[in-house]
Amino acid sequence: MNTYGERFRVTTYGESHGLAVGAVIDGCPAGMAIDMDAVEQALLRRRNGAPRTEADRVVWLSGMKDGVTLGTPLAFSIGNGDSRPDDYDRLEHLFRPGHADYTYHAKYGLRDHRGGGRASARETTARVVAGCVARQLMPELAIEATVAETGPRLENDTCGGIVQCRVTGLPAGVGEPVFGKLGASLASAMMSIPSAIGFEMGAGFAAALMTGSQYVDRWSGLLSPITTSNHCGGVQGGISNGMPIEFRVAFHPVATLPQTVECLHEDGHLEPLDVGGRHDRCAVTRVPVIVESMAALCLINYLL
Amino acid sequence: MNTYGERFRVTTYGESHGLAVGAVIDGCPAGMAIDMDAVEQALLRRRNGAPRTEADRVVWLSGMKDGVTLGTPLAFSIGNGDSRPDDYDRLEHLFRPGHADYTYHAKYGLRDHRGGGRASARETTARVVAGCVARQLMPELAIEATVAETGPRLENDTCGGIVQCRVTGLPAGVGEPVFGKLGASLASAMMSIPSAIGFEMGAGFAAALMTGSQYVDRWSGLLSPITTSNHCGGVQGGISNGMPIEFRVAFHPVATLPQTVECLHEDGHLEPLDVGGRHDRCAVTRVPVIVESMAALCLINYLL
Amino acid sequence: MNTYGERFRVTTYGESHGLAVGAVIDGCPAGMAIDMDAVEQALLRRRNGAPRTEADRVVWLSGMKDGVTLGTPLAFSIGNGDSRPDDYDRLEHLFRPGHADYTYHAKYGLRDHRGGGRASARETTARVVAGCVARQLMPELAIEATVAETGPRLENDTCGGIVQCRVTGLPAGVGEPVFGKLGASLASAMMSIPSAIGFEMGAGFAAALMTGSQYVDRWSGLLSPITTSNHCGGVQGGISNGMPIEFRVAFHPVATLPQTVECLHEDGHLEPLDVGGRHDRCAVTRVPVIVESMAALCLINYLL
Amino acid sequence: MNTYGERFRVTTYGESHGLAVGAVIDGCPAGMAIDMDAVEQALLRRRNGAPRTEADRVVWLSGMKDGVTLGTPLAFSIGNGDSRPDDYDRLEHLFRPGHADYTYHAKYGLRDHRGGGRASARETTARVVAGCVARQLMPELAIEATVAETGPRLENDTCGGIVQCRVTGLPAGVGEPVFGKLGASLASAMMSIPSAIGFEMGAGFAAALMTGSQYVDRWSGLLSPITTSNHCGGVQGGISNGMPIEFRVAFHPVATLPQTVECLHEDGHLEPLDVGGRHDRCAVTRVPVIVESMAALCLINYLL
Repeated sequence: MNTYGERFRVTTYGESHGLAVGAVIDGCPAGMAIDMDAVEQALLRRRNGAPRTEADRVVWLSGMKDGVTLGTPLAFSIGNGDSRPDDYDRLEHLFRPGHADYTYHAKYGLRDHRGGGRASARETTARVVAGCVARQLMPELAIEATVAETGPRLENDTCGGIVQCRVTGLPAGVGEPVFGKLGASLASAMMSIPSAIGFEMGAGFAAALMTGSQYVDRWSGLLSPITTSNHCGGVQGGISNGMPIEFRVAFHPVATLPQTVECLHEDGHLEPLDVGGRHDRCAVTRVPVIVESMAALCLINYLL
Repeated sequence: MNTYGERFRVTTYGESHGLAVGAVIDGCPAGMAIDMDAVEQALLRRRNGAPRTEADRVVWLSGMKDGVTLGTPLAFSIGNGDSRPDDYDRLEHLFRPGHADYTYHAKYGLRDHRGGGRASARETTARVVAGCVARQLMPELAIEATVAETGPRLENDTCGGIVQCRVTGLPAGVGEPVFGKLGASLASAMMSIPSAIGFEMGAGFAAALMTGSQYVDRWSGLLSPITTSNHCGGVQGGISNGMPIEFRVAFHPVATLPQTVECLHEDGHLEPLDVGGRHDRCAVTRVPVIVESMAALCLINYLL
Repeated sequence: MNTYGERFRVTTYGESHGLAVGAVIDGCPAGMAIDMDAVEQALLRRRNGAPRTEADRVVWLSGMKDGVTLGTPLAFSIGNGDSRPDDYDRLEHLFRPGHADYTYHAKYGLRDHRGGGRASARETTARVVAGCVARQLMPELAIEATVAETGPRLENDTCGGIVQCRVTGLPAGVGEPVFGKLGASLASAMMSIPSAIGFEMGAGFAAALMTGSQYVDRWSGLLSPITTSNHCGGVQGGISNGMPIEFRVAFHPVATLPQTVECLHEDGHLEPLDVGGRHDRCAVTRVPVIVESMAALCLINYLL
Repeated sequence: MNTYGERFRVTTYGESHGLAVGAVIDGCPAGMAIDMDAVEQALLRRRNGAPRTEADRVVWLSGMKDGVTLGTPLAFSIGNGDSRPDDYDRLEHLFRPGHADYTYHAKYGLRDHRGGGRASARETTARVVAGCVARQLMPELAIEATVAETGPRLENDTCGGIVQCRVTGLPAGVGEPVFGKLGASLASAMMSIPSAIGFEMGAGFAAALMTGSQYVDRWSGLLSPITTSNHCGGVQGGISNGMPIEFRVAFHPVATLPQTVECLHEDGHLEPLDVGGRHDRCAVTRVPVIVESMAALCLINYLL
């Protein structure tokens, strides 16, 4: 299932070390001039501010004429420049701990072992581009995610963290009851991000240990803010109440440890491996723009 | 969006004080003799063991002959017996705090104000029946949810809690990459339950504050258990790894407080209301069977 | 696949001799007072004007309050009154020629042999009710189907016919390119009607034998009618052009012959059967309201 | 709606004179070595045997390693080589008769006027590639389409025709009742092909004028062929009966006439235009491979 959304449908494709990653966006309204600088800025945030390499150049294949959307599918591809796939030969028959190597193998019987293949966070590049298009269609929304907490950063180790996100500008009445609740859709969108392991709206897990009197948001008697607290995160019965949408997403530590780790060989025996150096030890700082992108892709499907 | 699932599609219907609640199940294989006792047991758990009233009698409208499924849609209805809708007249123009009254009004312009209408937890009756059918199609799975924590129970107050769920018997290789990840689908399924406000797989939010060395599950070198810990909750890259699927769901306290509360009138003024007595103060004990039902509805869509 | 539509989703259920047939309609806007007389009139047309029996009484289970839609799922059931299932005992192991008996058996391994079960035209009762709701949401459209041709009616035989349909009031610009073309969706909707065996837009099969000069609709130079002919049936590139939508649907003769026919027994031998008397010999006069209903269900999914 | 299918999902993209056309195929099983020669042969048939130009070179962007599918999305693009977009400047504000120029404008407010843009038959290149992949997954099926009738070919005029298709190897029991009938899905698939204007299964429109005795296919008493005729086209109640699937598709004449035609200007006045010479006058010979491709894409969604 590589498609997200019903009305603004984003189908991503690509392995980290194949020819390209990219997406087709179906359902984008016609007549929008896409702000390509904003796309570049979003990709820059995802790179943690590192200079652009060839590997982040977006080629738009269809759906635009003179920079304006046609209402037809927007397709783009982003070449995987500096791929160095030979580095990965020794991984061909090994399942690293904490990665999807084993589960992809169990599901498909084969996999692209180079750099995580389809499971690589490189796929989120396509989400960031698509999310950026979505945001431009909803200029009334402010979607802002930041790192709320970072795990401990020890030498020769990795860390995770918690990202919080706040959306303002969403009017009351957006959402769908029962199975299309805002909180359910946001949860699914966020948990689809690589390394996401937890999601909570508003007061979240802490709410479970409050009393009802503490938890229930009281009417302010004002038009805005409509309640005096926002423990529910701006959603009641799956529908927005006009307060900011607030949620948090937990990300587990980077699974590629800067240590020798025991891998499981396809044959069943364990084999030590030193993955080496050029991997992120703390990826959570790159995540806020991905959280914002998925929030945008989630919300636009309610608003179009 | 009142339909859950793609292959085993459950469309629920009904307001708490309308004629009936129920569902249509499309995609149930033919030739299964439904265990009606198991359905009754599941509904009994949802009632916290209270004796069955007329309001829990399931009428099967279609899809079976002589108790065996035909492969055609299974439709059922459950009459809303003891509805006492007159109790609700004073609520017609009031939005209770902590409820979906205001958001439904904002979305639809009108609502069934009686007992929460469509937003009532009564709708979960249909999910429990459908979930029970799904479970019977996957006898190899053991799905067990229990209350892990309950909030404080003060006099004249309500509480919430945390439900944990564990699924064993799911082989490695179940799940879909990218947007159909097991964790994403389970998150959506759980967050669609009334009062759900948080979801986490495995170590969840605690994982965000571990180091990578602490977090990463190591291969055991054995066929089973395949790893020596299960911090990931049995899912890597969105696909099961053969370990138990483990997750937790946070539920906020019951929103109907046994106190006088200020309601928002449609006119904009605040108005005190005493909702009265016959409401649950702690609903979390009724939730495990709903969590199990949604887990079953989630998983069967990967397995059919 | 018992659901039709994406935005106005109709899920029908029921076997002809089970407890009930009916549907759940999801996506119906809130605040509409349903005209129940129009529903009765539509069912009357489907009965060819025969007096209403118990078997056509619509019970609305949910989604309305005081006759007004709530925006929540509209569920209804129609009991199968005079079912006489015992008449069908001799059919239990026989596959009639021209019916779906054999194919249902091949697909499901079992079937409800009584009166066609799920394959019975009785299922269209639910479509007519749903279609009637859809039409009330699009009062600007006039959808009119009539019998264009009826096959020969010989003694001891049955006939089919051709139904033509014309929709006026649809503005230019409705439809979706590529796979969601109006003609493709209408074709699917019409071919889902029992006994449908052909579909054509505008000049249809005759168009294939015209020259381009004959076929191409010329601009009138007027705002309306925008073209001087309508060979394309009001659709170009899958999108309406403002002319009437015109199409025709072919229905094969009634498969239940008023003769002794050879049935295939589950054992493989042939066995003569005389089905007897109370079956329609020419059902095509009942079909226009079904064609209109499906046209309405098709079009509303583009307009909501 | 640029996606076809639920299980084997093909999302096509591209305008005829943009950078590229192509598709993403989601749901293709892992481990299949794609026969690239077969892809070339299919594209050759679509070109009517003309030599390959740059414009038919398929670039595979993702989803394969060493020519074998990974189970992840297969993305490909086909550059639009010899596009000569300047030829089209005079068409920028004109709506040609018989084309989708006006309807795209009515829907989107703007369009790519060069060579039909998204409505161009060039988009079917992507369908042929995807269909070829689908066929390789169903080697047990023989899908063969041929031109059954061609319209008259006068000087300075164009023609259409009728394509017939026959699928053998499909076992009994494939299809879905009610809205997912084989005939309904095939009708939708075929009517999505540019210029398609009619569809019929088996005896089709002729069946409507037969008597029931003539129409009803009789059991042969043999295992194969199971009936002595195939007026139903191999489908009963939406489900295959083991006989060949047989259907016909009508295509209207090529809309680009080799004559001076009156175009509608955006301003509302009529304006003569001579489109000139390099267009097909009879495209129906290029259609059989497209019909086969769409038949394959339709059927694989029932078989996966």
